[in-house]
Amino acid sequence: MKVKRVLEQSIQEFCRSINTQCIRVADLGCASGSNTFLAIREIIDCIDQEYQHKLSNSLPLSIQIFLNDLESNDFNTIFKSLPDFYEQLGPQSGRSCFIAAVPGSFYGRLFPDNFIHFVHSSSSLHWLSEIPRGLVTETGLPLSKGNIYITKTSPSYVHDAYLDQFEKDFTNFLRMRAIEMVPCGHLLLTLHSRTAGGEGYCYQDILGMTLSDMVMEGLIKEATLDHFSLPLYEPSMEEVKHIIENEGSFKIRHLETIDLAWNDADIASSLMEVVSDKHIMGEYSARNVRVAFQHILASHFGEDIMDDLFCMLARKFSDHIDKMNKAKEILVVSLSKA
Amino acid sequence: MKVKRVLEQSIQEFCRSINTQCIRVADLGCASGSNTFLAIREIIDCIDQEYQHKLSNSLPLSIQIFLNDLESNDFNTIFKSLPDFYEQLGPQSGRSCFIAAVPGSFYGRLFPDNFIHFVHSSSSLHWLSEIPRGLVTETGLPLSKGNIYITKTSPSYVHDAYLDQFEKDFTNFLRMRAIEMVPCGHLLLTLHSRTAGGEGYCYQDILGMTLSDMVMEGLIKEATLDHFSLPLYEPSMEEVKHIIENEGSFKIRHLETIDLAWNDADIASSLMEVVSDKHIMGEYSARNVRVAFQHILASHFGEDIMDDLFCMLARKFSDHIDKMNKAKEILVVSLSKA
Repeated sequence: MKVKRVLEQSIQEFCRSINTQCIRVADLGCASGSNTFLAIREIIDCIDQEYQHKLSNSLPLSIQIFLNDLESNDFNTIFKSLPDFYEQLGPQSGRSCFIAAVPGSFYGRLFPDNFIHFVHSSSSLHWLSEIPRGLVTETGLPLSKGNIYITKTSPSYVHDAYLDQFEKDFTNFLRMRAIEMVPCGHLLLTLHSRTAGGEGYCYQDILGMTLSDMVMEGLIKEATLDHFSLPLYEPSMEEVKHIIENEGSFKIRHLETIDLAWNDADIASSLMEVVSDKHIMGEYSARNVRVAFQHILASHFGEDIMDDLFCMLARKFSDHIDKMNKAKEILVVSLSKA
Repeated sequence: MKVKRVLEQSIQEFCRSINTQCIRVADLGCASGSNTFLAIREIIDCIDQEYQHKLSNSLPLSIQIFLNDLESNDFNTIFKSLPDFYEQLGPQSGRSCFIAAVPGSFYGRLFPDNFIHFVHSSSSLHWLSEIPRGLVTETGLPLSKGNIYITKTSPSYVHDAYLDQFEKDFTNFLRMRAIEMVPCGHLLLTLHSRTAGGEGYCYQDILGMTLSDMVMEGLIKEATLDHFSLPLYEPSMEEVKHIIENEGSFKIRHLETIDLAWNDADIASSLMEVVSDKHIMGEYSARNVRVAFQHILASHFGEDIMDDLFCMLARKFSDHIDKMNKAKEILVVSLSKA
């Protein structure tokens, strides 16, 4: 609900500053599932709402939506749901809607110059374009053995390597969008943010412990684990603010950290009431990690150990469920092209 | 080679009449395979060639290509080949190229108003949007029992029903494109044309005979075959000309029938020299039909009899290989928005 209010605000502002008969929207990192359609539905509804207020006697408005994700994303499944989506959408005050897909990395160019009016990206920008280069020596030896991510005991160069890579990637993202977007175009971005001051475990810790166990059990070679790092970084609000200001193409209109702690605790406790079973909670958490990381883990460790890994991960989660960080932060960033 | 010359001509004419920094091209009915990339590669090369002559000191040009086919098309496979394609393409005189996909029927709207500069469609427009309505009574009873297409002995209402449907579909196609294309935009269309005066069998006859055999052998129910008609129509040049002029949005710049008879005969005779085996020629012909019709046949007759069908079809082709029509005609249509 909080993000939706920022989205409405952003769309309102940009609709009022841009004069066009066809609004071009990009959803970057759209994935493939029900969330794909939820996001674009919300954007279309916001635009419809704004135009119903504003332009009752103008020519029919059309909205062109470009769904983007990596070339490996399952676009076929999205496309098969399109006829139903168009039908649900119906004709709204004569507005027509055209959905296209643009596969490729959003750290590179996706669109011609001066083309897109509104960019949306939800829970995608914390993914890095590659494992931070600073985590291996010039000869390719891993510097952060035994850890797959930043932990509480990591030396500072591990954090620096991750921040460097994030800064490079996010700067690229902003630079590319600055070329592709029209003047006064708006962006709404959400990304995971680092949990400040959490004393407990986060899911990366649990995944790291499980992979170490698998080395002990001989299911994974130690060297294979040593060469693995999660290609994601959860920045702080200050880091994101600094990068945007440094890059210079966009004006910050809204920057907020949303703490999902209470919600999560609510969900967890109501789930616990229903299932009252750490085993099931562990399965649930492992499944969530599998959705996000299966692809990356399988391409490094091999498809054949994935079932073992997520089975052991579920057990590890249920063993540590009481010691997990409850806090979870989402950064909401609303920008306009300067 | 003949089609390529018309394509070059069409792109040359439209590049000289349109002033834009980003050329938007749509390939309608792109399918999924090596031909998909061949077609867009040829279009890009033609545009590059034209701009190298013309605009050596203008700003960098970008080309945005929209690949279209039905929602059921395998776009994932196309997307996985995109990184290689972009690499082969390389940077040509600073030109950048952006490839997107737009799934949906080209008999409906695909793009916003006034958006596309050049439309290409190869071997797709002879597919109808549905089985001609005139082939069933108002209560849904089939009128053309025992035939899956127009045969030499078909009553005239069968041909009329097919032509009606083609006229409706092709008119819709032109009407939609007229809205979506910029003034002076160009189209290049190729589609199968009816073989004039062929005395022998065409592949539709052989397919029909095979399906009838399967009814005799109890593999297909007679009623199931009675309710099946091929949803395609191969128009004559005069029919196409008449529909374009009647619809009125486009000017005919070039209209030609290319007779592939000699080529085909060449291929056939050189193939026969190599394989000198009617059995292998039959397999080859059946495989070609399978690529184009498997989807339609399986959805009507069921996936499980497809292997039997194409096995019997190969035998039927090899039995009749000497009595097949050698002639094959392709219509090449070059249009510009009036």
